[in-house]
Amino acid sequence: MATIRDVSKLAGVSVATVSRVLNRSGYVGAATEAKVTAAMEALSYKPSETARSLAGKQSSMIALMVPDLLNPFFPELALAIETCASAYGYTVILCNSNNDAEKERKLFDLLVHKRVDGLILSSYTATPKQIIALQDRGIPVVVVDNGFPGQPILSLIARNREGAREAVRHLLKQGCSKIGHLSGPADVTAARDRRQGYADECAALPWFSSSLIEQGDFQAEGGYDAAKRLLDREPGIDGIFAGNDAMAIGALKLLHERGSRVPDDMRVIGFDGIRVPMVVPELSTMVQPIYEMGEQAMQQLHRLIGGEDVKRETIELNTSLLVRRSSSR
Amino acid sequence: MATIRDVSKLAGVSVATVSRVLNRSGYVGAATEAKVTAAMEALSYKPSETARSLAGKQSSMIALMVPDLLNPFFPELALAIETCASAYGYTVILCNSNNDAEKERKLFDLLVHKRVDGLILSSYTATPKQIIALQDRGIPVVVVDNGFPGQPILSLIARNREGAREAVRHLLKQGCSKIGHLSGPADVTAARDRRQGYADECAALPWFSSSLIEQGDFQAEGGYDAAKRLLDREPGIDGIFAGNDAMAIGALKLLHERGSRVPDDMRVIGFDGIRVPMVVPELSTMVQPIYEMGEQAMQQLHRLIGGEDVKRETIELNTSLLVRRSSSR
Repeated sequence: MATIRDVSKLAGVSVATVSRVLNRSGYVGAATEAKVTAAMEALSYKPSETARSLAGKQSSMIALMVPDLLNPFFPELALAIETCASAYGYTVILCNSNNDAEKERKLFDLLVHKRVDGLILSSYTATPKQIIALQDRGIPVVVVDNGFPGQPILSLIARNREGAREAVRHLLKQGCSKIGHLSGPADVTAARDRRQGYADECAALPWFSSSLIEQGDFQAEGGYDAAKRLLDREPGIDGIFAGNDAMAIGALKLLHERGSRVPDDMRVIGFDGIRVPMVVPELSTMVQPIYEMGEQAMQQLHRLIGGEDVKRETIELNTSLLVRRSSSR
Repeated sequence: MATIRDVSKLAGVSVATVSRVLNRSGYVGAATEAKVTAAMEALSYKPSETARSLAGKQSSMIALMVPDLLNPFFPELALAIETCASAYGYTVILCNSNNDAEKERKLFDLLVHKRVDGLILSSYTATPKQIIALQDRGIPVVVVDNGFPGQPILSLIARNREGAREAVRHLLKQGCSKIGHLSGPADVTAARDRRQGYADECAALPWFSSSLIEQGDFQAEGGYDAAKRLLDREPGIDGIFAGNDAMAIGALKLLHERGSRVPDDMRVIGFDGIRVPMVVPELSTMVQPIYEMGEQAMQQLHRLIGGEDVKRETIELNTSLLVRRSSSR
């Protein structure tokens, strides 16, 4: 059986270069890569996982870290990333930080220790300093669903503020005369931006008051409780913009229990576009491009892993309005 | 700073023994462990991840592999396992085989290659042969939500057949006169056992016919479709036992669309006990002990990792009936 050394001799390059081609790590010129590939084919060289490991590099494993596995947004994002990762030859392991900064720190150490090739990170708690430290320890990072403008961190985030504005304008167009907002956690960028988008559209309207904003936690039960507080405090609300779909589902449950007719008495819209096909009535939402976000994250991470000179900046993705029964007859 | 060698000298044991204590691997007597622990304390020895690695052993990482991340049963199981794993000092990585045998095989190789300390496996596709091969390659395995009686494999599975019988008896007690069953995939042990439990209770009743069983796929959309086929084919059904909660939620959606009043016209019960607090009406279900299953899996895996002589057998866990609005006034 041919060895990596045989390939290196036939191709006339160093073993390290063959290793880089095998592992898609570091820079290898196209001509050199072609020579190596031809030599591998000529020798029927098929690197086993073990051989690749012996060549000084682990098999291609990337990690996806998420803060809340029970919010369907993250399983869906995971599936999108896994699909793209497969196409690039990576295997994905999933780490759930459970929104616990200490657990997240331990997971970071583990990933460095296990030499993952890269990390796609969704986190409400990680600081720019931590992320930059990971990069310095040799782990390329792409952040999703969060942004760090001005920091040398590659991030992908939906245009949350603009999306929120469009969601609110939709409710206004449907004839809503007083719209409340269930906001997400104040320390989550996406939640703050959506809340800001709501304020952009509503703050100048005659009925507006800041008590129309009620803080939730991005979870269904929290959305139920927040909707209860909001509606008990503020009579006359006929539209609810929930900061995410999970909270919108909680609000729908409360409205059902109280006998409110949706969308006749109350129109509801969420944010995320998760698959909740079984909710009655079906939920209108501002769709984040979950698949595109996963795909772009994988593409960018692959470039970082390959040593390409990728610009570390915040990239914004468009959202799209999906009108269903909860906001429109 | 104290080294592992200092600890070994002070405790009067070999470095390998200190390493075993540090890594909870292999057998170490209680008295020896106490000596090592005392020496570590006396020297303020705190093994860094790196030092532990240098001591010849990876940091403690276990993997949990699941077949369907979009079924909330698995995120909930993952949280239960993570909670227990933390207490034992393990970090969990999650692998989603997406019910794809080829992807699962690749993940097995990766886990061996990355030297995980153990694997908790939930799979509809893995064969006993594959699992035994993993064990032979040095990866202790505990299977959850599946059983391999007669094979040298430690498995944890709910008493699915008995649970299904109890669910059906509940519907009968509520006055149902013709009960249909939405079954899960035929190649999934739990699905077959639940279907068998339904047949145990119903096959001798005058109204029974095998066309009261409709095959679903354990997913909500599939449950919706299966309920449609069942109800169109079999008039007069007034009770549905769904093989899992996801399918039951799909059935509830169909019933809502058709204007069936639940539980007046139709009583519905699921199986699993996942958190679906936002479904209207709230779903009755046969609860699997998800937390207990996760906890036991972690305990057993820890014993296997420690080299204990654990009996490799199928362990059955009890289910419990949870009556809510979908089956009872």
